[in-house]
Amino acid sequence: MRSVTGYAAFEPDGRLRPLEFTRRELRPDDVAVRVTHVGVCHSDLHAVEGLGTGAPPLVPGHEFVGEVAEVGSDVTRFRAGDAVAVGNIVDSCGVCANCLAFREPYCLEFPALTYGGRDLRDGSPTQGAYSTEYVARDAFVYALPAGLEPAAVAPLMCAGVSTWGPLRRGGVGPGQQVGIVGLGGLGHLAVRFAVALGARVTVFTTSPAKEADARALGAHDVVVSTDADAMGALSGRLDFVLDTASAEHDLAPYLGALRLDGTLCVLGLPERYVVPPMSLLGRSLVVSGSAGTAETQELLDFCGEHGITADVEVLPLDQVNTALERLARNDVRYRFVLAVAS
Amino acid sequence: MRSVTGYAAFEPDGRLRPLEFTRRELRPDDVAVRVTHVGVCHSDLHAVEGLGTGAPPLVPGHEFVGEVAEVGSDVTRFRAGDAVAVGNIVDSCGVCANCLAFREPYCLEFPALTYGGRDLRDGSPTQGAYSTEYVARDAFVYALPAGLEPAAVAPLMCAGVSTWGPLRRGGVGPGQQVGIVGLGGLGHLAVRFAVALGARVTVFTTSPAKEADARALGAHDVVVSTDADAMGALSGRLDFVLDTASAEHDLAPYLGALRLDGTLCVLGLPERYVVPPMSLLGRSLVVSGSAGTAETQELLDFCGEHGITADVEVLPLDQVNTALERLARNDVRYRFVLAVAS
Repeated sequence: MRSVTGYAAFEPDGRLRPLEFTRRELRPDDVAVRVTHVGVCHSDLHAVEGLGTGAPPLVPGHEFVGEVAEVGSDVTRFRAGDAVAVGNIVDSCGVCANCLAFREPYCLEFPALTYGGRDLRDGSPTQGAYSTEYVARDAFVYALPAGLEPAAVAPLMCAGVSTWGPLRRGGVGPGQQVGIVGLGGLGHLAVRFAVALGARVTVFTTSPAKEADARALGAHDVVVSTDADAMGALSGRLDFVLDTASAEHDLAPYLGALRLDGTLCVLGLPERYVVPPMSLLGRSLVVSGSAGTAETQELLDFCGEHGITADVEVLPLDQVNTALERLARNDVRYRFVLAVAS
Repeated sequence: MRSVTGYAAFEPDGRLRPLEFTRRELRPDDVAVRVTHVGVCHSDLHAVEGLGTGAPPLVPGHEFVGEVAEVGSDVTRFRAGDAVAVGNIVDSCGVCANCLAFREPYCLEFPALTYGGRDLRDGSPTQGAYSTEYVARDAFVYALPAGLEPAAVAPLMCAGVSTWGPLRRGGVGPGQQVGIVGLGGLGHLAVRFAVALGARVTVFTTSPAKEADARALGAHDVVVSTDADAMGALSGRLDFVLDTASAEHDLAPYLGALRLDGTLCVLGLPERYVVPPMSLLGRSLVVSGSAGTAETQELLDFCGEHGITADVEVLPLDQVNTALERLARNDVRYRFVLAVAS
């Protein structure tokens, strides 16, 4: 077994502490990745907060970059020293309809989550990348695009693909008017993607102070969502709205901003959606999860070509608790990345 | 002015009584239609039930067929004696984006409803087709397909187009698995349309007794929606589900029957939708209103070609109260049609 050092949650809402643990010996199709940078996702916070009492220690981390340390005997795509990235799933059945469509997060047998899940072959619990090394099937390891800062690539692997997938499936491109709700880890990337895809982009924010930030990211228009007049002026104008806000909120104002047959795609999964039926008349509401391997590769290629990465604040791994505490109060612009090794 | 006899509601929840009233003199683009048959829609029931105390008398009726009595000076598409049909809107602005896309029910200036609305030129209240004659702009009058029984065509103009539009926009056709929820006025037509479009059709019903009826309409499968095992077996199977049930109900079972990226289209507008967020993950929810002129003409052509009409029970106009009372308790298979003249 391979010895690894990481940071784990040991009790609900507790601080993370160092944990020595082991990864499996490489299978023929495995890649061992020496983790250099791992993004801090809201999911990590939820996983730590929701850890059951008496549960085994949990190592979070599911958007990371690093360097290949070793490859299994059948691996031909990578060799030691390659710069790579891994996202929030590390295996799937590969044969169901959704896997065959390269939409592996929707695997009908349920995919192996990067942490907090189960390895599909031996059933062992998966531990995340707040750790020195990760072992994953080669099919879920991606080559890092050349010319991009690795730390700033890490968030593309979860925050990035979660917004890229729906923008692409929504057909976002030139001539389209697109709205992005929220300007956090996901939202700021969504703005960059939509702008680079050629759309005219309106950012919805509850905070007037974020207008300059939104424009710096490339947004063409900024609307404070509590400004009823400004929202009313947008009525029926947008082709597609991507809602990255995670807390429960009224969806009607964003549905109202859509043209006939327009789509509101929601990424958050609050306890319930507040949807007045009339506000959905002639519009679509979609909830999107994560992207699969094809869309992930497409995004990395696109970001390499357009020079797009996340805006990150890098902290050393031993400051993980500071990162989680600050993330809990949204004190980050726009994503924390933990430096594990350099 | 043109003298007309109709049946009107005079007070909330009251019985309809005869009313003598007038229609406007023909404008150059008007068509006067001698009504022969008018369908009884759930909307008529709601309009009567919801009539405000002290409101002027209301004549319902917005899916009808008849014979052209007279045409305005500019009308070239019709002449006296032509068999025609009219649906639930009779005018729209014609210049907004939605009208230009032939989606006139979504006219951004709001269309003129066939009854309970306002004429767009003089602002006068519109009165429906539970009456001997109707006057409408020629653009909202359709030629009756040859070879179809007129009484059985009337429901195509509202129940029909309301289900045809979403089936067409949902791309329903050969190779697709389609679900239809509910087997009433709308649902029975939706089954016929989806079958004729080449899809494999599953009917969801709360009533096991309707299985034979559903199969007689062409359904390939019938699932009793309260049968958890049968619903579970459908999980992830359907491409498109059209929900014609009007009462508030849980949408999760129908969303669960959809494959990834599948669409649930709801036609009812209850007070609220019950949508557990996880049930929408990877699926779309759409609410659809009525169809515009292009889709209406397309449906009439399709029905003429395929010999499709509604199953109707015809009652004379003076039995309108019997029809409404029986409709209120769903005692009709599948649509009442009032015979106004013959």
